[in-house]
Amino acid sequence: LADKLNVTVIGDGGWGTALSLVLAEAGHQALVWSPFEEQAAECSAKRENVRFLPGVALPESVRFTADVGEAVAAADMFVCAVPTIYMRSCLSRFVDAFPSDRPVVSVAKGIENGTLMRATEIIADVLGPVPMSVLCGPSHAEEVARRLPTTVVASSRDPGLARRVQHTFITERFRVYTNSDVIGVEVGAALKNVIAIAAGICDGLGFGDNSKAALITRGLAEITRLGCAMGAQRATFAGLTGLGDLITTCVSPFGRNRHVGEQIAKGKTLQQVIDDMHGQVAEGVRTTESVCALADRCHVETPIAREVAKVLFRGKPALEAVSDLMMRSPKSEVEALD
Amino acid sequence: LADKLNVTVIGDGGWGTALSLVLAEAGHQALVWSPFEEQAAECSAKRENVRFLPGVALPESVRFTADVGEAVAAADMFVCAVPTIYMRSCLSRFVDAFPSDRPVVSVAKGIENGTLMRATEIIADVLGPVPMSVLCGPSHAEEVARRLPTTVVASSRDPGLARRVQHTFITERFRVYTNSDVIGVEVGAALKNVIAIAAGICDGLGFGDNSKAALITRGLAEITRLGCAMGAQRATFAGLTGLGDLITTCVSPFGRNRHVGEQIAKGKTLQQVIDDMHGQVAEGVRTTESVCALADRCHVETPIAREVAKVLFRGKPALEAVSDLMMRSPKSEVEALD
Repeated sequence: LADKLNVTVIGDGGWGTALSLVLAEAGHQALVWSPFEEQAAECSAKRENVRFLPGVALPESVRFTADVGEAVAAADMFVCAVPTIYMRSCLSRFVDAFPSDRPVVSVAKGIENGTLMRATEIIADVLGPVPMSVLCGPSHAEEVARRLPTTVVASSRDPGLARRVQHTFITERFRVYTNSDVIGVEVGAALKNVIAIAAGICDGLGFGDNSKAALITRGLAEITRLGCAMGAQRATFAGLTGLGDLITTCVSPFGRNRHVGEQIAKGKTLQQVIDDMHGQVAEGVRTTESVCALADRCHVETPIAREVAKVLFRGKPALEAVSDLMMRSPKSEVEALD
Repeated sequence: LADKLNVTVIGDGGWGTALSLVLAEAGHQALVWSPFEEQAAECSAKRENVRFLPGVALPESVRFTADVGEAVAAADMFVCAVPTIYMRSCLSRFVDAFPSDRPVVSVAKGIENGTLMRATEIIADVLGPVPMSVLCGPSHAEEVARRLPTTVVASSRDPGLARRVQHTFITERFRVYTNSDVIGVEVGAALKNVIAIAAGICDGLGFGDNSKAALITRGLAEITRLGCAMGAQRATFAGLTGLGDLITTCVSPFGRNRHVGEQIAKGKTLQQVIDDMHGQVAEGVRTTESVCALADRCHVETPIAREVAKVLFRGKPALEAVSDLMMRSPKSEVEALD
């Protein structure tokens, strides 16, 4: 068994809270840092994260704070569970106090607009060269919180750290494999959300599983193409953080990005959909912009991301976008997936 | 536009009937051959295949017969849409009359027990060296019949025939790509049904999308491993007939193989489930046996197929099988997918 650790989860969202439950079950003390005093106080008082993981009782070994000093004081390990858009501002509050020898486990799934940085690059940019790992895979927070069997990947360039993260998080119901392709893991985790918006568009148009399977297949080819151009290893995209996470995100009713696509295809505007989500972040919306910019930079074709961008930001009708994607002239499968 | 053809569909199941609708929409005459007089007569009279594709009205350009001579007389092309288990006996009735220069498009998805032949191998074994193509992909019959957008692959060692099949079947809602890897297409189509039984077992046990995505990921690795050992090309399994068809089959509520796994995990016996299906064939049950034999022959590990076989044929409890698969000791992702 792993040593009992004090792990600070930076970010009070559903995924950070679900991971604090996993850590508690694995025998550790989890301290969830919220940027908001009231939210931390409410979670502490109710033993429940009513806003982001409602209906799940939290044990005594999961505590909450909004105090940076307290969050940093005893931490043996950090989990960075802040959406990419808020990551830089949240982490900047930790800069002065951060113990630079403590590992940070990133579980964010986006690519920053403008800088086009992956989550670990943002963390290094703000906190400096701390020991870094990524934890990703097909893992909806709601299912993890209900202790449904889940399998994820701990990735780090340092194999020792990947194994340490594996042993810290592993439980009977939360299986952790190691992997060394940090770029591939982060690119797969981020880009899947863009494909999930497209999958949601298919759902919203009333298309069936045949269409969605074809879209997911082409989506994985698109992710793999861009990821390899960014330096990732092809095999990673056939694994849990590529294919696996893509399937869950495109299929699960819990998927927020899928939900965004579905609602837009049904006629809502992006702003309406975001307003209806009450602060839950669909990372794929901003990631779509970053993916188009990365595709330009890497000279790679990303037709799905391009069509999603047109639907989200330029008012292109959803049906027209899907038709432009799927109903092209006949050719060979190799060309179609290229 | 393609020439107007007379296409005979051998087999009166849901998929053969749905394909006859596609052919009709593409401007061809479809003649569906049933091995049973009464079934052919009922379909003709009601303009509906009540037994295997209920609720779908059939146009005048789809006709039915149980007469082999009529089925062969005017046919420019044949579709072989008979489940693998009945294929040899059905095709044997065509041997004497078969015009050996007419192409046969196989849409079956199994591997014969004992001989371990793929569908095109069975066809060649019975009918001799006729021009042969395969049509496969994520394509539930019910969705195709409802004209939901579907994308499939026409595969043949003869590129000209693959293109001819493509142009024969293609419609606005039924997109056909070509591909030359017949072995890969047939192996993917057959083996996905075995993984779908395992996915159904996960569903029957009440596991969620996280588990199922992990299973599908490992299932595709297993299919790819065995397929490559059989001479297929690795890239095929990342395409529509590999990944795409696997997703649909594991996720769709229409999936018969998924249904078998689900019912068994809920406590029914295999015989009870088969009896309840009223003549619909879940190809994956018999394919599971063939896959285990092929794995022995090719010296390849197929842990999912092995566990499915234990559950189906040796009474191993479903939960124990999934635990043995998913809850193994921690290791690297490469090892886990190998």
